[in-house]
Amino acid sequence: MVGYERVPATERFADASLETVEAVLSEAAKMCEEVMAPLQRNGDLDPARLENGVVRTSEGFAEGYRAIAEGGWIAASAEEASGGMGLPLTVTTCVNEMMSGACLALQLNPLMTQGQIEALEHHASDELKALYLPKLVTGEWAGTMNLTEPQAGSDVGALSTKAVPNGDGTYAITGQKIYISWGDNDFTGNVCHLVLGRLPDAGPGTKGISLFLVPKFVPDENGEPGARNDLRVVSLEHKMGLHGSPTCVMSYEGATGWLVGAENDGMRAMFTMMNNARLGVGVQGIGVAEGAYQHALAYAEERKQGKSETGNILGHADVRRMLAEMKADVFAARSIGLMLAVALDMARATGDKSWAARAGVLTPIAKAFGTDTGIEVASKGVQVHGGMGYIEETGAAQYLRDVRVTSIYEGTNGIQAMDLVGRKLMDGGEAVFALIDSIQSYIEDVKGDIPELAEAAWQASENLRDATEALLAMDVADRFAGAVPYLKAFARVLGANAHLRVACAERNSATERLARFYILRMLPEHASLCAQARAGALVPAEDFAA
Amino acid sequence: MVGYERVPATERFADASLETVEAVLSEAAKMCEEVMAPLQRNGDLDPARLENGVVRTSEGFAEGYRAIAEGGWIAASAEEASGGMGLPLTVTTCVNEMMSGACLALQLNPLMTQGQIEALEHHASDELKALYLPKLVTGEWAGTMNLTEPQAGSDVGALSTKAVPNGDGTYAITGQKIYISWGDNDFTGNVCHLVLGRLPDAGPGTKGISLFLVPKFVPDENGEPGARNDLRVVSLEHKMGLHGSPTCVMSYEGATGWLVGAENDGMRAMFTMMNNARLGVGVQGIGVAEGAYQHALAYAEERKQGKSETGNILGHADVRRMLAEMKADVFAARSIGLMLAVALDMARATGDKSWAARAGVLTPIAKAFGTDTGIEVASKGVQVHGGMGYIEETGAAQYLRDVRVTSIYEGTNGIQAMDLVGRKLMDGGEAVFALIDSIQSYIEDVKGDIPELAEAAWQASENLRDATEALLAMDVADRFAGAVPYLKAFARVLGANAHLRVACAERNSATERLARFYILRMLPEHASLCAQARAGALVPAEDFAA
Repeated sequence: MVGYERVPATERFADASLETVEAVLSEAAKMCEEVMAPLQRNGDLDPARLENGVVRTSEGFAEGYRAIAEGGWIAASAEEASGGMGLPLTVTTCVNEMMSGACLALQLNPLMTQGQIEALEHHASDELKALYLPKLVTGEWAGTMNLTEPQAGSDVGALSTKAVPNGDGTYAITGQKIYISWGDNDFTGNVCHLVLGRLPDAGPGTKGISLFLVPKFVPDENGEPGARNDLRVVSLEHKMGLHGSPTCVMSYEGATGWLVGAENDGMRAMFTMMNNARLGVGVQGIGVAEGAYQHALAYAEERKQGKSETGNILGHADVRRMLAEMKADVFAARSIGLMLAVALDMARATGDKSWAARAGVLTPIAKAFGTDTGIEVASKGVQVHGGMGYIEETGAAQYLRDVRVTSIYEGTNGIQAMDLVGRKLMDGGEAVFALIDSIQSYIEDVKGDIPELAEAAWQASENLRDATEALLAMDVADRFAGAVPYLKAFARVLGANAHLRVACAERNSATERLARFYILRMLPEHASLCAQARAGALVPAEDFAA
Repeated sequence: MVGYERVPATERFADASLETVEAVLSEAAKMCEEVMAPLQRNGDLDPARLENGVVRTSEGFAEGYRAIAEGGWIAASAEEASGGMGLPLTVTTCVNEMMSGACLALQLNPLMTQGQIEALEHHASDELKALYLPKLVTGEWAGTMNLTEPQAGSDVGALSTKAVPNGDGTYAITGQKIYISWGDNDFTGNVCHLVLGRLPDAGPGTKGISLFLVPKFVPDENGEPGARNDLRVVSLEHKMGLHGSPTCVMSYEGATGWLVGAENDGMRAMFTMMNNARLGVGVQGIGVAEGAYQHALAYAEERKQGKSETGNILGHADVRRMLAEMKADVFAARSIGLMLAVALDMARATGDKSWAARAGVLTPIAKAFGTDTGIEVASKGVQVHGGMGYIEETGAAQYLRDVRVTSIYEGTNGIQAMDLVGRKLMDGGEAVFALIDSIQSYIEDVKGDIPELAEAAWQASENLRDATEALLAMDVADRFAGAVPYLKAFARVLGANAHLRVACAERNSATERLARFYILRMLPEHASLCAQARAGALVPAEDFAA
C-alpha cells in the first residue's frame, strides 16, 4: 500500500526483504506485548521522581528498557558501522508504533536516542562517532535533545545558553534548558545531551546557534563513564500524563561539551534530529491510537447489554460509528507515516532529490495528523467506555492524558502546519503538486474497479490542488491562518488514497467497507477544511482585547 | 439574541426584568470570581477522600458551598413556595455557567440539588415537599441522583435495586448504585438521595421502575436530621479529573425511602430531573469553555515573543485562529443553552406546547454541543499554552480533565443524539421543521444587511432541512449511525443564526468579524456533517471481529 517493495529493491536495503521484515516485526511485537504493555500503568501510578538530584524511574522501567536494548530495538536503523542493524527506517517506524502503543512513556526514551544517533551519524566528528555511537545503539547510554529555554520555546532563535571555548577543543556550556524528556534515568551508564548554545561571538537568532554533545559523565580514556560533568536536573515537571517519562529542567553550569558539526551551524544538525523526531512523534500518536482502539474494542465486545442484538454495546450504531472512525483514522495516519518512512529510505538509498522533497512535504503532515489522530482516537476510546472511560483504572483515560503532549512537543502542530504552507511551498508547490499528481494517477488506474469511491477520492485531491493554488496566491498572514485546516485536508486526501488502494486489493471485504466508510463519511470533511484554509485570517489581534 | 424579553413579559416572570437580571448576575459573578475560582486548583490537588466511611471534601469547599448557599445560588429558579426566588431558569442557567467556569467540581453539587428540587416540585407529595424543599433550596441539605448500577448504565431499565414496602408507607431500599456524584459531603446537614428501584411485583424494564427519596439521616419529628439511615458510601472513584467532586459507589442496605410520584412511574419523574440536568450539564461545558478561553487568552497576551508584531503570541495567525474558534464556539454553545432555557421558561409561563416541543428538540443539542464545546475549547486552550499547557501548574490541563466527563454523564452525547433523531423526530419532524422555519424567517428579515453571511446561514439551514428529511426516511439503525453528526450540524446552524443576529446588531465591529469568522470558516462543517448523517451505518458489527 505504501510501496515498500521499492525499498529492498535498492542496494542499500537489499537485505530487508518483506520476509525478513515480517520476522523482525513479530519479534518486536512479542517484546511489546510481553514486556512493555504491562509497564503502561506503572508509569502512571509510580511516576518518575527526583531524589537528591537523581531521577528514579517507575517500577519495572529499568527491566523494560533492558529488554528493548537487548532486542536491538533502540535503533534498528542505525548504520551497521555504528553497531546497528542498518534496517530501513520503515521498519523502525513499525517497531516504534508498537512500542508507543504498549508503553509511550518508556518508548520516548529510545526515540530520543534514535534522533541523537541520526544527528551524530550525519554531523559529528569521527572521534565522537567512534566513542558514542556504539554505546547509544546498544542502549548502554541514552541520548536527549536540549532545545527549549524558558524564553525560547517555538522561537528557538531566542535561546541564550552560552558555550565558551576551553582552549582544548572542548566548550564550557552554561544555561538552563526546560522540557527535557528523559533528561536523566537510573538505568543507563551515561546520559548524553545534545544541547543548542551560543558561542561568545555568535550573531543573534538561529544563525548564531551551535550544537554540543554534553555527557552526564565525561568518558575516560577507555571510553567508560568518568568524571561527573557540571550539569544537573533541577526539577521534574508535573504533567497531565506521561508520568513515567521524567520531563526535566536541566541546569548546565560550565559543563564540558563537544561541538557537533561546524560552529554556528547547529540548527542544520538539529533539523536532522528534529525531522527524524517529527516522524517519530507522529508515530507515537499512531501507536497510542492503535492501543486505544484495541482497548476500546475489547471493552465494547465484553460490555454486555441485554437490549442490543449482538448482546454487547457493539450492537449500538453509534458505538460502531466511533469504532469505525477510530479504525479508519488509525489506518489513514499509519499509511501517511509509512509513506514518509519509505520516502526517507528511498532518499537515503538512491540520493534522488524527489524522494527528499516528498519526505519534506510529508513530515509535517505525518507529525500533526499522527498526533491529532492519537488524541482524537484516545478521546473516542474514553467515550466508547462510557462512565468507565473516566475512571483511571480502565486505562482509557491514560491513553488520552499521555498522548495529549504529542501535538505540542517536537514543534506544535501549528508549527508543523506553518512549515507545510511556508517552507514546504517555497518551491512554488512543485513537491505538493507532484504528490497530488501521483495520487491522481493511481486513482485513474483503479477508477474502473470502485468508481464511486475513486471518483470521490479524485475530486477531493482536485479540491486540494485548488486550495494549494489559493494558498500560494495569499500573503503569509492569511496563509498561516489557514495552515492547520489545509494540513488536515491534505491528510484526509492521503488517507483516502490509502484506503482506496487496500479496498481495490480486497474487494467485498471488511477492508472495502471500512474504505467506503472513510471515503463517504470522513473524507467529506476535506471540503470544509479547504474552505477554512481559503478563508484567510478574518480576525485581527486587536479584536481579542477585553 | 435569544429573545429573553419575552420571559418578563409573562405574568409568571414579570419581576425578572432585564435590569433585575443584570443586577442578579453581577452579584453571582462577584461570588464566582472571589470565592469559587480560587478553589479550582484545591479540588484537583486535594481530592475528596473517604475516611472511615465519611467523605472529606477539598480544602475550602465547605466555605465555598456556604457562599453559594448564602447568595441564594443553589436554586434561584425554585418556586417561591419552596423558599426559592422563582427566577426564570434562564437566570439560573447564566449563574450555573459562571459557577462552572469558576470551579466545576464544586458547582456539580448544587446542580444535583437543582435537579432534585425540580423533580420533587413536580412529583412529590405535599408532605415530602414541605419537609425537604425549604432545606434543599437554602442549601442546608444537598440532593443526589441515583440511577446507574454496575450492569445498568445507559440501559437504565436493567437496574435491580429492590424496594420492599415496610407497611407504614415507607419502603426498604436495597441495592448498589455507582457513579453517584456528590454521594456524600461534610458540609450539609443531610444528603438526600433520589434512588430508582423496583418494587417486588414490578415488571421488567423501565416500566417497572419507581423513584424513592432516601435521606442519609431520617428526619425526626421536627424535620431535623435524625437516625442514620442504612446506606453508606462504599468507595470513591479515581477519575481523570473533577477530583474535588466525590464520585461514590453507594450501598443501600434496607434503607428507609419514600415514594416520589406513583409506583412504577419512576422514569417519568426521573426524566424531569434528567432534562433539567441535561441543560445543566451542557452549561457546565459552556462554563468550562469560557473559563478555558479566558485563561488561554490571558496566557497568549502575556507570553512574550520577540519576533511577533504584537510582541506576544497573539501575533501568530494560528494562535489567533485557535482563540477565534474558541470564542466563536463558546458564543454559539451559549446561545443554544440560553435558547433552551428561554423555551423552558416560556413553556412553564405560558403552557404553550410549541415551546415545550422546541425545548424537547433543543435539550439534547444543548447538552451534547455544550459539552463537546467544553472539551474542544479546553483542548485548544492547552494547545495555545504550548508546552506550558501540559504542565499541571498552569491549570489549562485541569479544565480539559475536568470537563471530559461532561460528554459522558447525564446520558452520553451518543444517547443525546439518538434522542434527537429518535424520540424528538417521532412527531414526523414537526418541531424540528418549526425551528428551522423560525431561523429562516429571521434570516429573510436581515438578508439585506449582510447578504454574504445571511446567504450562507440560509443555505446551511436548508441543508439541515434536507438532512432531516433524509433521516426521517431511514430505518432506525442508519438513522442512529448518523445521529451524532446530525446533532453537530444542527448546532452549527443554530450557532450561525445566533452569530448573524449579533452581527446585524453591531455592524463593523469585532462582533461582526467574529460572526464572519464563524459563518465563513466554521459553519461549512455542517455540509460534511450532513453528508455523514445521510450516509447510513456502512460498517456492520461483524467487521470488528479480530
